[in-house]
Amino acid sequence: MAEPLRIALAGLGTVGAGVIRLLDQNRELLTARAGRPLDVVAVSARDRSKDRGVDLSRFAWEDDMTAMAARGDVDVVVELVGGSDGPALTLARNAIRAGKGLVTANKAMIAHHGMELAEAAEGANVALRFEAAVAGGIPVVKGLREGASANAIEQIYGILNGTCNYILSTMEDSGADFGETLQAAQELGYAEADPTFDIEGIDAAHKLAILAGIAFGARIDFASVDCAGVSRVRAQDIAQADALGFVIRLIGRADIDTSTGEARLFQRVQPCLVDKEHPLAAVDGPTNAVVAEGNYVGRLLFQGAGAGDGPTASAVVADLIDIARGDAGTPFSVPAATMVPMAKADTGHRMGHNYIRFTVTDRPGVLAEITAAMRDAGVSIESLIQQGKPEEGGEVLVAMVTHEGPESAVTEALRLLDGSDSLTAEPLVMPILEA
Amino acid sequence: MAEPLRIALAGLGTVGAGVIRLLDQNRELLTARAGRPLDVVAVSARDRSKDRGVDLSRFAWEDDMTAMAARGDVDVVVELVGGSDGPALTLARNAIRAGKGLVTANKAMIAHHGMELAEAAEGANVALRFEAAVAGGIPVVKGLREGASANAIEQIYGILNGTCNYILSTMEDSGADFGETLQAAQELGYAEADPTFDIEGIDAAHKLAILAGIAFGARIDFASVDCAGVSRVRAQDIAQADALGFVIRLIGRADIDTSTGEARLFQRVQPCLVDKEHPLAAVDGPTNAVVAEGNYVGRLLFQGAGAGDGPTASAVVADLIDIARGDAGTPFSVPAATMVPMAKADTGHRMGHNYIRFTVTDRPGVLAEITAAMRDAGVSIESLIQQGKPEEGGEVLVAMVTHEGPESAVTEALRLLDGSDSLTAEPLVMPILEA
Repeated sequence: MAEPLRIALAGLGTVGAGVIRLLDQNRELLTARAGRPLDVVAVSARDRSKDRGVDLSRFAWEDDMTAMAARGDVDVVVELVGGSDGPALTLARNAIRAGKGLVTANKAMIAHHGMELAEAAEGANVALRFEAAVAGGIPVVKGLREGASANAIEQIYGILNGTCNYILSTMEDSGADFGETLQAAQELGYAEADPTFDIEGIDAAHKLAILAGIAFGARIDFASVDCAGVSRVRAQDIAQADALGFVIRLIGRADIDTSTGEARLFQRVQPCLVDKEHPLAAVDGPTNAVVAEGNYVGRLLFQGAGAGDGPTASAVVADLIDIARGDAGTPFSVPAATMVPMAKADTGHRMGHNYIRFTVTDRPGVLAEITAAMRDAGVSIESLIQQGKPEEGGEVLVAMVTHEGPESAVTEALRLLDGSDSLTAEPLVMPILEA
Repeated sequence: MAEPLRIALAGLGTVGAGVIRLLDQNRELLTARAGRPLDVVAVSARDRSKDRGVDLSRFAWEDDMTAMAARGDVDVVVELVGGSDGPALTLARNAIRAGKGLVTANKAMIAHHGMELAEAAEGANVALRFEAAVAGGIPVVKGLREGASANAIEQIYGILNGTCNYILSTMEDSGADFGETLQAAQELGYAEADPTFDIEGIDAAHKLAILAGIAFGARIDFASVDCAGVSRVRAQDIAQADALGFVIRLIGRADIDTSTGEARLFQRVQPCLVDKEHPLAAVDGPTNAVVAEGNYVGRLLFQGAGAGDGPTASAVVADLIDIARGDAGTPFSVPAATMVPMAKADTGHRMGHNYIRFTVTDRPGVLAEITAAMRDAGVSIESLIQQGKPEEGGEVLVAMVTHEGPESAVTEALRLLDGSDSLTAEPLVMPILEA
């Protein structure tokens, strides 16, 4: 039997405990597949006394997690602490500097510091893996880095946040509005007590930035992700979308824009209307799904559980098996030092159909005002629905779908309407994702 | 720049030409990702003079493809000739014996000789890779071997043949019967002139046997795959299924049956009724999709183009990149010598709902005869549809869905009806795949 891979595990929340359970339960299988045992030797967390349902007495305990990196009996550090900076980042840096492999589920840290960590790992010739950081249990980092490695990736897009998808698909089924659905999701454990990172799209943006780095060989640039969440989606939007043949999903999307003659990076997270015939329309509940379109393979879809202790542990341990097998390689498909910084793409010229929803006061002339603005901005309306009876407070909903046209025209139309006292709230624009 | 990976390519059909086109078109990208150039040095095919749309004058030509294995200037042989035995197998054996890596898209060869080849490759410490042999461009061999490697796989199932899926989903859209749909598929290039391997499920069975080997660590056992094709599916079956909330798909499915106290291998390819809410129900046209259910990750879905020169070339070149990166490892996740022979599982005790379709003569008492046989065999009927007006020739269709029960009861009911002159054809049983 080959030498075991010796693991230090920092962070013993549900995922950390899940990793230990998985390593115990599937031990024989993992040893056979990895070619050697995967042995946890040390653990660290904030509270030593807490019962996590797994026996920790077998492992050395470190009060200071960053000390894990200095242990001579450790080959790989698994970081499951979270947070883009702070102790997680210190541990990651120290582990790599000490010549240890690093496996992490920390999307914020990779989105913000992935380039630095990858360069350090490549310099030290150690593994850096983060499958669990993107889309939970779905092996999509591997799918892009290795499975689709023969392709120029034309675009990636997908459902990258299980909380938002749970909320949107539940609103779809129940007809309930956002607020009460979020509250129910929190009670069921599908949303955090402070749900901001999820519902405002930041978590999805972290994942998108990481995927874009792998897919396009561009330096990860989280700051340039345009990001809108789901909190402004109303039950009526979902009903209107349904009547038009669409569902609403929070979609993260990235591609390379070459319209200016240089490669620029487009990255955006926002709710979209997805054609019911598109495979992403069938993705319900806390499931994630990622589409990668390659110039030879065409459209690939990877789908599965986007979060949860079991799926996330599955991804963490898959990374450990790769490392044990000696198959770790460069973290981002190409050496980090060769990943090029790309400017953020302008979006005005991007063509598409859009859904635009206005909430307006119930009085004569409002529709004329809106449609005049559309005309003046050159936005051509494909269909328009004005809701029959006013909402509470005399508010009326006007929803339209535009003919294909540039994004700049929609922006201009909304600029023309900006400040109009006919509008009771900021209009909501959602692009249409066709099948 | 590191030394190139030197490739000999045997077989210059659409896939072989596609591989050369891909290596040319994406050359810069591939070199960056693989860390070294991927260089074709020699090619071989039956007809040297044929125009394949790619410049072959750059490469050495071998009339005898098996001579590729002996070339001193080759690191990896790519076998795209096909056929389970014959020259493809000779080339594969010779290449491995000569210490060269082997990449193949040959599902029949891997299904029949994969164990021998893997043992030889492991013994010679060379790579053997076959991503393109299963589900075309979808990285599902990698998905199981690496992506889901932390999991005990509970079952795998999916749509593994694009021709059958094209035919079934086209019948669904058009209402046309099998024969004319097959003919149209042949005219469009979605079915071979001799479609037997595809429509009788043999191609899907090859792929299923390979996936089962990876998923369960069982020695590949193609002979024990139960296999039924799509040629007996009628337009009326599709209409009945639709009315009941299902679509019909050819599903390959494998799991481990432990009901006898020892692990036995269940492998079956047959048309099934798939609940419209199941992700596989939305898989249309020549697309493939594979579901793997793991004990930690839950349900993973991999979907994409199951055939075609571009997608298949994508999978072949992904394997080459892995080899160039030094990430090849054991072909089947665990060493071939440790893969255990598993007996074929009995299926009588397997529980499920089934759709059973009879074609009967239009005369009194037939329904009583069928339902009596069901009662006597202990098959409980959930719903039954007798078609109103007789088909041509006075034939009437009777379709039923059973309550959950053991497969043995259905078999017994059909045995009781065997030889009845009320039946105009052998009944068709299709299991129901619930969401």
